[in-house]
Formats: sequence, structure tokens, C-alpha cells
Amino acid sequence: MKKENSVVDNLLGQMRSEAAAIFNSAVAAVNPQKAVKRFVRTDGAKLILGRSQADTVTLDLNQYERIFLMGGGKATAAMARAIEELLGNRIHSGLINVKYGFTQPLKFTRIVEAGHPLPDKNGVQGTAQILQLLESANADDLLFSLISGGGSALLVKPCSNIILAEKQELTRRLLACGAGIDEINTLRKHISAAKGGLMARTAHPATVVNLMLSDVVGDKTDVIASGPFTPNCSTYQQALDILDKYHLHNIPETIKTHLTDGFNGKIAETPKPGAAEFEKVYHYIIGSNILALEAAREQAIRLGYNTLILSSMIEGETKEVARAHSAIAKEIIKTGHPITPPACIISGGETTVTLQGQGRGGRNQEFCLAAALDITELPARVAILSGGTDGDDGPTDAAGAIVDPLTVKRGEAVNAPALRYLSNNDAYSFFKKTGDLLMTGPTGTNVMDVRLMLVR
Amino acid sequence: MKKENSVVDNLLGQMRSEAAAIFNSAVAAVNPQKAVKRFVRTDGAKLILGRSQADTVTLDLNQYERIFLMGGGKATAAMARAIEELLGNRIHSGLINVKYGFTQPLKFTRIVEAGHPLPDKNGVQGTAQILQLLESANADDLLFSLISGGGSALLVKPCSNIILAEKQELTRRLLACGAGIDEINTLRKHISAAKGGLMARTAHPATVVNLMLSDVVGDKTDVIASGPFTPNCSTYQQALDILDKYHLHNIPETIKTHLTDGFNGKIAETPKPGAAEFEKVYHYIIGSNILALEAAREQAIRLGYNTLILSSMIEGETKEVARAHSAIAKEIIKTGHPITPPACIISGGETTVTLQGQGRGGRNQEFCLAAALDITELPARVAILSGGTDGDDGPTDAAGAIVDPLTVKRGEAVNAPALRYLSNNDAYSFFKKTGDLLMTGPTGTNVMDVRLMLVR
Repeated sequence: MKKENSVVDNLLGQMRSEAAAIFNSAVAAVNPQKAVKRFVRTDGAKLILGRSQADTVTLDLNQYERIFLMGGGKATAAMARAIEELLGNRIHSGLINVKYGFTQPLKFTRIVEAGHPLPDKNGVQGTAQILQLLESANADDLLFSLISGGGSALLVKPCSNIILAEKQELTRRLLACGAGIDEINTLRKHISAAKGGLMARTAHPATVVNLMLSDVVGDKTDVIASGPFTPNCSTYQQALDILDKYHLHNIPETIKTHLTDGFNGKIAETPKPGAAEFEKVYHYIIGSNILALEAAREQAIRLGYNTLILSSMIEGETKEVARAHSAIAKEIIKTGHPITPPACIISGGETTVTLQGQGRGGRNQEFCLAAALDITELPARVAILSGGTDGDDGPTDAAGAIVDPLTVKRGEAVNAPALRYLSNNDAYSFFKKTGDLLMTGPTGTNVMDVRLMLVR
Repeated sequence: MKKENSVVDNLLGQMRSEAAAIFNSAVAAVNPQKAVKRFVRTDGAKLILGRSQADTVTLDLNQYERIFLMGGGKATAAMARAIEELLGNRIHSGLINVKYGFTQPLKFTRIVEAGHPLPDKNGVQGTAQILQLLESANADDLLFSLISGGGSALLVKPCSNIILAEKQELTRRLLACGAGIDEINTLRKHISAAKGGLMARTAHPATVVNLMLSDVVGDKTDVIASGPFTPNCSTYQQALDILDKYHLHNIPETIKTHLTDGFNGKIAETPKPGAAEFEKVYHYIIGSNILALEAAREQAIRLGYNTLILSSMIEGETKEVARAHSAIAKEIIKTGHPITPPACIISGGETTVTLQGQGRGGRNQEFCLAAALDITELPARVAILSGGTDGDDGPTDAAGAIVDPLTVKRGEAVNAPALRYLSNNDAYSFFKKTGDLLMTGPTGTNVMDVRLMLVR
């Protein structure tokens, strides 16, 4: 019996290590510096952008008078560093907004530290200076835009004489009356000097290389940081209609005046698809959830697994998502569908947790605890990992967790009933006791979550 | 523009037909009569059981003195008919319990119509007669046990002098105090004369061929109809412990006495794995969700689709399950994961709906309406179907629905806002207006639900 147990332990231990290794490969693939260098190369004075034949663009660096860097987001300093390493003193100057503490040593680029997730005065001032930089750029200049998670809060500048507090007040009111995220974005993009393509308008006619590290489901360029270099299909008319729909009439006068002026044509509409402002803008999503999942897949293949990427766009209630994943693990063991063992099922995205308890945890730990409860009857050759690619799951020091069919039993052995901890949203405390936490420390990147399910 | 629309309509129309055809193949594969004949064949006096080399058993019909049929479930009459067609007047006699109205013309087998889902006196009397038949069988006899969905309510006979009302009262009390389904089954199996392997004990030493059409997630033989011919791992001790756990002390005296007698060894324990009672019992799951999904897969391949069976064991809140499926459709279109178009994703199981509204619908229609809302932004080359294999989704005359990215728009055009109908759990009324209902009529079988997602 003892011998049998240790065989089980060895296999599970190996599978848990493999899961962690696959997760690490996924995170490494979206490291901001490496990701920039994968999409931006130089060959003498040639600047080669893109990865595939279809999206490759070659520019002649010598044709540009000045090269600027600008951007905003948590990983933007690391992205700027990669560009500085590539282009060195070809760079004229740069300015980026990052979250407090998220700096890197840079040579040509000034860093403004500002508020995130709540924007603050520093962010507004930094953004105003970035807009001046964009304004100064002309047709002979090349501009690198570096955008990553947090960009929407860090590239923030209300237009006309609207102040930040008024803009935030409007967002709060919209949320309170149940407006959808698309409706809120339509409003936001019409009271900003940066979002909804307005940075592209300001930079025009300079050439823009817009490098994005996406932390949003679906990787839409008009959603990432609210699309400062992307056409905005919505209109002032629609923005006003939304206010009407929710009977939001007593909003700040500055906002009302601005939107009415826009509707009446006194202020130009935000730039639409096909506008001249976008002719010289090149977009590249250099890091995203699907790129992380594809790297995970490659690593899993190297470890001998049959692999399947389910989707990088999984959203929804975490426990329910766990249940669907567990159902797939069960089927693999029972019938070899959707793939035969050794199997590695990979998925990503960002789920939500409807809080019902007072415990500590994050969506990845909650996923793992729910999954652990779903797989208690499975043989001891299943390992399930869920981790935030930023290494930071909820208000905890863990990235997530790794569980297996014995996890719930391990909990019982240390007087931790899994179901009770789950009901209290206290996955962190549970895994602290069972030793199932996944710890990576801050990774410096963020493309949402990666989930792995190994079945042997 | 008109031409383009009609191209879209043609493609979507074709895909919707294909989805319906694939669903029909899935249902046809678990038709009770066909399913029996797939697992039971004769060759002269040889009776050949099973489909694969591993599970094939050959019996000599001439070695048996008498052949009996017995069973219970909604599809059991059709199963009996198949056996009668195969064995004709080799059959001595038979007795089956079916739901009121679920009869078929049979020659050698008597049918008792009884209550379902709530068991009634007819069910108890029929079961008592079946137990007499089993009792009369001896070592030279062969017995076909035919079990399908509803078998648990239709093969019902409390043991000792417990009456049906007392047994039902206990189940109600257990449910009310939050007991799990495993706990409830442990109790049920210890106060029944039929469940938990007791029919196998009664039939012993006859040879038993136990043919099951499974309508439970996971297809466990001890769960299907509460396992009348399957070992019961739980004990009287555990049954009493569960009553203690929930402080259920003032239960009917008859039940208390029976369980205590069982605990004290005055009544034999239910038969355990390895018991002599099971030596001559052959189990075959002749129809199940995974068998339906595999048939769907074959049909989809014939129609030129790349296919993937996700899982036959999907449970959970319907809207959330829809969301996970939609995420996969989005990924297929965006990156070709998990499989490239033309893609057919297949899944099964049984989801739940937490009712919040007053409308009409079933879990399959709810799934489709939620999915329709998730895919409005996708190109018009996606079709999603969800249907109950019994042709009977909730309290409606539809089996389910078929939706596509234009379904929500079709709703708007007839003044039916999809989100509002979904919030009111009123998918049936919505689809009645949009023409998206899937109608099959009663199919005579039930292996839970089949979901299909076609992407071209």
C-alpha cells in the first residue's frame, strides 16, 4: 500500500511540476521585452515589423527625421526598454505613463508615474505632455506607441474643459444605472482627448507603430486602452442617446456642453474607419492571451502531451467554468474525448467571482478549489492549474494554484473542508494549508489568466 | 446588398439544416429498439451480447430452461419489443413497468402502467410482481433486465413494512435539510426491496442480461435506476450516520426499525462488490449521451466538418455553459482553436436553470437564447443547436432550438428583445416569434441533451 501511494505521489508530483513549467512558458512568451523584440527587429537601417508574412512591414529608419516613444500601461516601461535596446540613440525622446512603482531604467524616455486603477492628476498631466509630443510630430517622424494593461487609466485626459472628477462621476452614474460596457465606452470616447482614435488624430501625419500587450478578452484594438490609435465607430449622437436612455440629464454642464457641441458639429467627430488619420498607423498585438496559450501548447507538446486549446476568451462565473473544465477531464478519462491521454487542455480569458463570503482569494484560486471538488472521484492522474499571468491573483501573493484529485483529502487531513472554504471565497487560506498555491512573484506582464488541465 | 443577404441566408439555412440532421442522427443512434439490437444479436441458438471484442459474451440459448423479460422506464416497452423480435417464442414471459401511456404492442410481456416522475401504487404493485418473477427464476433461467430513464420511480418497492408515503416523506426531509444526492441514494437503497443490487439478489442464481439506456451524467450503473442489479457500496451504518448528521430522528418508525435491524445484522446488508449475486449478471449500457454524441460526430464528419466532442458530462448553470461554448466559437473564428472551420463542436449532459422569471422554456432553449446573445458580433457562419434527446424540453412542445448570429436581430424585428426574454426564462416565447424552435415530437428515448456548434 505504501509503495502504491508513493507511485501515485511521484506521478502527481511530476504532473504538477509539468503544469507549472507549462504555465511558466506561457508567461515567458508574453514577457513585454521579449514580446516587443519578437515583433520589432532591425537589420541595419531597416525596421522590420510583424511576425508572419501577411503582417510584415519594413520601414527605412533613415527616412525619419525623429523617432519618438510614447505610451501608457503597467508593462510599458519594459516595452520602452526593448525599443531603446533596439534603436539606441536613433531615438529622439519619449514619454510614458506607468503605474506607481512600475518603472525601468530608461535612457531616452521620461517616465511619469501615475494612478492605477483609479486615474489621478499625474496621469492627466503626463497624458497632456504626451499629446504635446504627438502634436509636435510631423510627416517625417516615426512614433512608437506602447500600450499595455492599465493603459486606459494611465492615458487619461478629458477634453474641452471637462475635469477628471466630472468624467469619473459620469462613469459612476452610468455604472449605477446599469449601462453596458459598450455604452460606457461610447461616452468615454466622446469626452476624452486621447481615447477613441484621438491620439492618432493628434499624431497625424507622423508614422505610428502601435504595439499593444492586450489584457482584454478578444484583443480588440478599439478596446485595449480605449483605442487611442483606433477608429471609433460610435458618434456624439449615440453618446447623447445613451444619456437619454438612462435619463441622465443632470450631469456636469461641461460634459453636456461638449457633447452638444459635438452633436452640432462645432467639435469634430472622433475619427472613423478609413479616415486619413490611420493611413500610417501600424497595429501589432505583441502579447495576448492566445499567444500565451500557444506557447503553453508548445511546451506541453515538448513534454509529450496531446494538446487542445479550448479558447482564450472564457468568461463567466468561475465555479461554473471550473465545472465545465472538470467535465472535460472526466470525459478524457472515460472515453478519450476530446483528446486522448496524456492530454493537456489549455484555456484562457478572465472569469468573474460573485463574492458570497469574507475569505481571501482570487479568481484563479477559486477556479482551482471548485475544480478540486469536482474531481475527487477521478484517478490520481489529473492536475489542474489556474494562474494569473501577472503573478498576482486577487489580493493575495499567489498567482493561482495547482490541484489534483487528492487536494480535497489533503484539506480534510489538515481540518480544512474544501466546500466550506469555497463557500467563503477563501481559496487562499485553503491552499495555504494544503500547499497547493502557485507562487511566481510579479511577472511584469499581464494577458489575463491561463488554465491547464493535465490528464495521464 | 440584397444578393449578399441571400448568400448569407443560404449558408445559414444550410448550416441550420445540417445541425438538425446531426441532431437527428444522435437521437436515432439511441433509439431504444435499435440500441438493443446493436448490443444483442442471435445466430441460431447463439446469443451474442456486446459491441466490442472486449465486452462480447456469447451464451447458448438452448441451455436455458426459461427466458424472462423484466424492467422499468419510459423506453422499456420499446426495448422489450426488440427482445421479443429477436427471441420470439423462446420467451417464457415478462413484466415491465412503464409510465402511463408509454406502451407498445407486446406479445410475451405484460405491461404495467404506473406513475412517473412521482411513483404510485401501480408502480409498487408492478414491482412486487417483478420481484416474484425474479424469485421464481432459477439457475437454468435467463433473464433480460430492461432499464431506461424513469426506472428509479417505476421500479419502486419499499422493503419490510415501510409504505411508499413514508419513503417519499424521508426523501422530502433529506432534500429539505440539504442532503446530497449520494446521501439520499444511500438511504433509498437501504429501504428498498429493488434498488442497490436487491433485484440481483432476488434473481440469483439465474443468469441476468442487464440492458440500460442511461439518462444520468456519467452512466454509472449504480446510479441508473438506483442500480437494481449493481453492487451497493454503502452500508446500513452509513444510512444511520446520515440521519444523525442531519438530526433526522423523528422519521417513520418502520424506517427506523428497518435500518436498526439492518445495522444489527437482523437483516442482511445489500450485496457488495464481488458478491456471488453478481457472478452471472452481464451489464450493457446500450444507449447513453456519449453514444449519441459519437453518432453526431459521425454524421458531422459525413457532412464535411472537423469535429470535437467536448464532453458528455457538462452540468452547471445553463447561461454559463452557453457562455463557455460561445467562447469556443469565437476562438474558432479568430484563431482556428480548438479546431479549424468547418468545425462542429459537440457536447452533452444536463444543465440546470435557476429560474428568475415567469416565462416558458427548457434548459435547451435557454442555452440557445443565451448563446444567441453571446454571438451577435460573430459573422453569419455559425449555427448553434441544443436539444433534449427525448424531444421534450421543459414544459413545451419543442425539443430545443437552433440559433445563429442573426437570431437576436430577428427578435428585434418582431419586437422581441432577446435579453428581456432570457431574463424572464421565456425562451420558448422568443423562439416561437423568431422561428428558431427545434421540433421533433416525442422521440421515445432519452439520453439527456445534445448541443452542437457549427462554424464555417
